[in-house]
Amino acid sequence: MSWNRRHLIGIEELSRDEIETILATAASFRHLLDRNVKHVPALRGKTVVNLFLEPSTRTRLSFETAAKRLGADVVSFDAAASSTTKGETLRDTAQNIQALGVDMLVIRHAASGSPLYLSRLLKIPVVNAGDGAHEHPTQALLDAYTIRQHVGEFAGRKVCILGDILFSRVARSNIWALTKLGAKVTIVGPSTLVPHWFVGMGVEVSHNLKSALADADVVMLLRIQHERQTSSHFPSLGEYTSVFGLNKTRASWLNPKAIIMHPGPINRGVEIDSDLADSPRSVILEQVSNGIAVRMAALYLCSGGQPENVASLVD
Amino acid sequence: MSWNRRHLIGIEELSRDEIETILATAASFRHLLDRNVKHVPALRGKTVVNLFLEPSTRTRLSFETAAKRLGADVVSFDAAASSTTKGETLRDTAQNIQALGVDMLVIRHAASGSPLYLSRLLKIPVVNAGDGAHEHPTQALLDAYTIRQHVGEFAGRKVCILGDILFSRVARSNIWALTKLGAKVTIVGPSTLVPHWFVGMGVEVSHNLKSALADADVVMLLRIQHERQTSSHFPSLGEYTSVFGLNKTRASWLNPKAIIMHPGPINRGVEIDSDLADSPRSVILEQVSNGIAVRMAALYLCSGGQPENVASLVD
Amino acid sequence: MSWNRRHLIGIEELSRDEIETILATAASFRHLLDRNVKHVPALRGKTVVNLFLEPSTRTRLSFETAAKRLGADVVSFDAAASSTTKGETLRDTAQNIQALGVDMLVIRHAASGSPLYLSRLLKIPVVNAGDGAHEHPTQALLDAYTIRQHVGEFAGRKVCILGDILFSRVARSNIWALTKLGAKVTIVGPSTLVPHWFVGMGVEVSHNLKSALADADVVMLLRIQHERQTSSHFPSLGEYTSVFGLNKTRASWLNPKAIIMHPGPINRGVEIDSDLADSPRSVILEQVSNGIAVRMAALYLCSGGQPENVASLVD
Repeated sequence: MSWNRRHLIGIEELSRDEIETILATAASFRHLLDRNVKHVPALRGKTVVNLFLEPSTRTRLSFETAAKRLGADVVSFDAAASSTTKGETLRDTAQNIQALGVDMLVIRHAASGSPLYLSRLLKIPVVNAGDGAHEHPTQALLDAYTIRQHVGEFAGRKVCILGDILFSRVARSNIWALTKLGAKVTIVGPSTLVPHWFVGMGVEVSHNLKSALADADVVMLLRIQHERQTSSHFPSLGEYTSVFGLNKTRASWLNPKAIIMHPGPINRGVEIDSDLADSPRSVILEQVSNGIAVRMAALYLCSGGQPENVASLVD
Repeated sequence: MSWNRRHLIGIEELSRDEIETILATAASFRHLLDRNVKHVPALRGKTVVNLFLEPSTRTRLSFETAAKRLGADVVSFDAAASSTTKGETLRDTAQNIQALGVDMLVIRHAASGSPLYLSRLLKIPVVNAGDGAHEHPTQALLDAYTIRQHVGEFAGRKVCILGDILFSRVARSNIWALTKLGAKVTIVGPSTLVPHWFVGMGVEVSHNLKSALADADVVMLLRIQHERQTSSHFPSLGEYTSVFGLNKTRASWLNPKAIIMHPGPINRGVEIDSDLADSPRSVILEQVSNGIAVRMAALYLCSGGQPENVASLVD
Repeated sequence: MSWNRRHLIGIEELSRDEIETILATAASFRHLLDRNVKHVPALRGKTVVNLFLEPSTRTRLSFETAAKRLGADVVSFDAAASSTTKGETLRDTAQNIQALGVDMLVIRHAASGSPLYLSRLLKIPVVNAGDGAHEHPTQALLDAYTIRQHVGEFAGRKVCILGDILFSRVARSNIWALTKLGAKVTIVGPSTLVPHWFVGMGVEVSHNLKSALADADVVMLLRIQHERQTSSHFPSLGEYTSVFGLNKTRASWLNPKAIIMHPGPINRGVEIDSDLADSPRSVILEQVSNGIAVRMAALYLCSGGQPENVASLVD
C-alpha cells in the first residue's frame, strides 16, 4: 500500500496500487460506521470547505458527513448564495478560500478540468466531487468497493454500464477504475450516447442489450442527465425507457447472481422499473453507505494520513 | 412518565401521559438554557439531518440549535440546493439520507402525511417539523408549555384560536394537545376558514369574536398563510384585518389576565396590531425560547433517551 | 488597551485606542493561524448566528471560520431560505433569533443602519458585516492591519482610495479608520461617484489620478458595485476601465514600494488588470487571511473577552 498524493482529481492518473490503497483504507473506516460512535479524530482542528457549484444532495451530504466523522470543521456553500453571482472567477474564489486558512477543498463544478486547475493553483489538497463530464472519482471508488463486496475479485468479472455514457463522469471514472482493477467493461445504450470511440478507453461497445446483460456480473445503470443535455440525443424519455430501461423482462436476461447498481438520483420508471430498484439484487443504497467510508479514506489520505495507521485509529 | 416512541409525527396519536412526558423533559432542558454553557452530551457522536423542503427560518434554526445543544452533528439542507430539483422521489431522498448512516431525520414538507410515510419506511427516528395542513407537533407542545407557565393547569381553561384554521397545521396540533390536556378550545375566524366540521375534533366553533375573546384565558392567533392559499378565502388582507385582526378595541374585550400567542412569523398589522404584539400580555418570544427546550426533549426522547435520566444529565 | 463595547457597528464611533485594541487582539490571533491547530476555546459553548440578507461568499465564510476557530457553534442562514420571504420584519426575525438563546448576531443587510437598530433592540452583541452604503467595519480593520504590516505606522502615510466611493461601505469605514489612525486619505474616481462633500470626512477629493497615485503608499481599489447601482453613474464598465482601471501604465506612476489592495470580489479587467492583481505588490489575499484574525478579535472582544487575556489564550 502506498499513497503520496495530495489531491484526488481523477481515477485516470491512479495506479492500481493507489486504488487498492484507498479501498483498503475505506474498509477500515467502513467498520467504524457500524458502531454507535462513528467518529475518529483524524482531522480534528482542520477545516474542510465544500464548494459545490452544481446542485447536489447526496454527494455534498456524503462529503460533509465524512469530514465531520473525521473530526473536521466543515464549511459548505452553494452556488446560489455565493460571489460567483458577482462575476468572480473560480480562481479568485478558490484563492480566497485558501487565504481563509482552511485545510482542504472539495469541489463540484460544471466545467471539466476545474479541480485539476485548482490543484495546480492552490497549496491545499483538492478533492474532485464531480467535474462536468470528466470524472467523479469517489463515485467510482465506492462502486468498486461495493462490487468487490458482492462479486469478489475483479479479474475476469464483467461489468455492463448502461445508459448515457457520453455525458457521464460516473461512466468515465468507473471505466478507468474497473479496467485498472482487472474487470471487463461493456458499455451499452443509444448510439448517440455510446460513441464507438470509447473503445480507446479499453471497453467493449455493444448495441446488443440482451447479450450484454446476459454476460454481466454487474449492471451499472446511469442517470439520464436530462438537465445537462443541451440538445436531444434520443427522441424522448419514453423512447429511451422502451428500448433501454431495465424492466422485468430485461432483468430476466441477467445472470441470477448479477447485481444492479445506480449512482442516483434515480429516475424511477425511466432507467429502471421501481420494483427492480427495490429488489434484493439492487445494491443502490449500499453504494451510498460505502460512499461515506470511501470519502473518509480520500479525505484522510489527501490530508497526509498514512494508510498503515488507519487500523489503529479506528480501533 | 413513559415514552416508547421512536418517531414524533403528530399529537393526535399521543396519550396525555406521553404529552406530559415531553413537557416534563422539556422543563429539565429549559433550566439548562438559562445557564452560561447550554450544552449536554446526550446526542454526542450522533448526526441529525434537517430536511426542510419548505422555507423556514425559525423552525429550522430552532431544531438545529436544539440538536447542537445536545451535542449532535447537524447537517441541514434546503429544497433549493437539493436533488429534488433533479426529480428524485422523497422516498429515495430519505432512504439515501438513511444510508449515509445518520441517526435521526427532522423533516418539513408541504405534503401532509410525508413524515408518517417516512417513519414507516426508515429505520431511524423521524420528527415532524410541519407537514402541509396536517400537524406541527413541536409547535403545539411549545405552546402547551408556554400556556402552563403563564396560566397554570389546563383543566377548565379556555383557549381561543383565531384565524386561518382550515390551512393551519398549528391549529390542528394545538387542538389535539389542548383538548387532551383538558382545556376547552374555541375556534373563531372567517367562516370560509373555520368550517363547522371542526366540532368533530372536540372544539367549539364560534362566529362571535367578542364573546369568544371575553371568555378566553389564552388567545392564540394564527398566521394568514397567504403564500399557501391557492384561492381566495376572504376578500383581501385588509378585510380580514378589519373584521378579525386583534386591535386595541378587541383586546379590551379580553380578560385582563389573558395572554396573546402567535406561532410566527407575524404579519404585523394583519393578524395583530404592532403594539399588542409587543405588549406585556404577548408571550410570543417566550414561545420561541420554550421551543428549543421542547425540541431538545423531542430529539432526546425519540433517540431513546429515558425521561427519568434527564434531570441528572442536566445537573 | 481598552474595550467596553458589546457591539461593533461602525468605525465612526470608535476611538483610536479602541481601533488599536482590536488590531492588537487580532495580532495575537494571527499567530494562531500559522499553527497546525488553529482553535482556541474562547467561545466554547456559545452560539453565533450569521444572518446574511445579502449575497456573500468571503465575508460569511470568514465570520463562520472565525467563530468556529473560537470554539463557537455557528448557525448560518441566507435570505433565500428564510422567513423574510414570508414578509416578516427584520425586527421580528432578530428578536426571534435572540429568543432561541443564541449568544451573538453577525448581520449583513442591504439597509444602512440595520445593525445599529438591532444593537439597540437586542440584548446580545451585534456585529456589522456590512450594511448598505454605511459601514463594513471589519473590512476596514483588516485593511488597516494589512497596511501596517506592509507600510508600518500610519502617521504621514498616504492612502489613495480609487473607484466607486459613493456606494461603498468599504470606503466609508476605511476613511474613518485611516484618518483616526493618522494617515492621509485621498479619494479619486468618476466625479459622479466621488462627490466633493466627502471632504467633510477629512479626506482630499482628487480628480487627478496620476498625481494621486504618484503620492500614495497604498492604493485601495474598490469594486464597481454594478449590482447595487440603480442608475448609471458612468457610461459603461469599459469607459470606467479606460479612465480609472489600474493597468500597467498607471501602475508605473506608483511609488515602487506602494501596495495594491482590493476588498474583493475583483472584477478582473475592470478595476484592475489581471496581471497586477497577481503581482507581488498586490496584498489582496493577505487581506483575506488577516480578515480571519480581525473577525476573531471582534467576536472575542464583543462577547466580553478581555484584550489582556488573549496572549495567554493563544499560547
